[in-house]
Amino acid sequence: VDRTTIRRLPISKSGEAGTSAASRSSQDRGAAVVVGPLADHLGYLLRRAQLAVFQDFFAAFATLDISPVQYSILTVIQQNPGLSQSQVSEALGIKRTNFVAMLDTLEARHLARRTATERDRRTYALHLTADGQALMRKLRVLASEHEQRLIDRLGAETHKQLFAPLRRLAALAHERS
Amino acid sequence: VDRTTIRRLPISKSGEAGTSAASRSSQDRGAAVVVGPLADHLGYLLRRAQLAVFQDFFAAFATLDISPVQYSILTVIQQNPGLSQSQVSEALGIKRTNFVAMLDTLEARHLARRTATERDRRTYALHLTADGQALMRKLRVLASEHEQRLIDRLGAETHKQLFAPLRRLAALAHERS
Repeated sequence: VDRTTIRRLPISKSGEAGTSAASRSSQDRGAAVVVGPLADHLGYLLRRAQLAVFQDFFAAFATLDISPVQYSILTVIQQNPGLSQSQVSEALGIKRTNFVAMLDTLEARHLARRTATERDRRTYALHLTADGQALMRKLRVLASEHEQRLIDRLGAETHKQLFAPLRRLAALAHERS
Repeated sequence: VDRTTIRRLPISKSGEAGTSAASRSSQDRGAAVVVGPLADHLGYLLRRAQLAVFQDFFAAFATLDISPVQYSILTVIQQNPGLSQSQVSEALGIKRTNFVAMLDTLEARHLARRTATERDRRTYALHLTADGQALMRKLRVLASEHEQRLIDRLGAETHKQLFAPLRRLAALAHERS
């Protein structure tokens, strides 16, 4: 069993007033929580890494109130003006119903708009508004700073080497569906 | 601009009856959706890879009705019997309120139990039940097969090399909180 620990719990100062409930348990003498076999699971580490990276993203984009998924939707609409809702949601792997709600929010904020297509009135073509384009210019700067923090963290070479294997893993989803 | 595409849309057979709404849009002549700058964002690829890996996990564990987060909770309780709810939720980076609901489910399924501690009646110590231990033996086999599919996908060397940088990224979360 791999005894790797991912987080060392704070050592309580025994008997001190105000010690939290958590630190009063049987593990309060500096023992660390052992995640054991989880540390050997790529899925577990992918999730922890993804959450940590998204946490940095959320913090960086908080002033503009944009989440990672909103940024990904705005980017795909900007890169492919006129796509349908299904095409954007499919390209990003977002469930249709979730996507519609997200687009409602972006439309209410006047960042993106749906326009009926000539060929089929039930299909909407997606475009960024002028506000959306202006916001994207700011977001691009923040996104680039966010990425630079990850590069600084890992080193440029390691950062670069992660992309190919992650793409191979991501492609598993296409093969299943 | 990186024109990397992550998914090639199906080429519609123009004019054919039953063509879906999506394929009737302006992109229906075999053009692919361009994710553009997203393809250069590690966070985006981490998320796509994590979702694909979890999709494999869900499929593999469906017969036993166990999700990745449930597996992680059961594993940490098994590895550290007697921990408090706060300690397990903190070690796994799960919000306290979400964790309590997840534990309710595991308790209702008779897989884990909370017992009041002698030192503090407000703190519960967590243990697996006999059913939980028996289930873990089955889950361990499925988890090992799931991991082997990822190893087969990436090659053993690449699979192994992913862990250190993912751990470095995951540690970003601890530094912020």
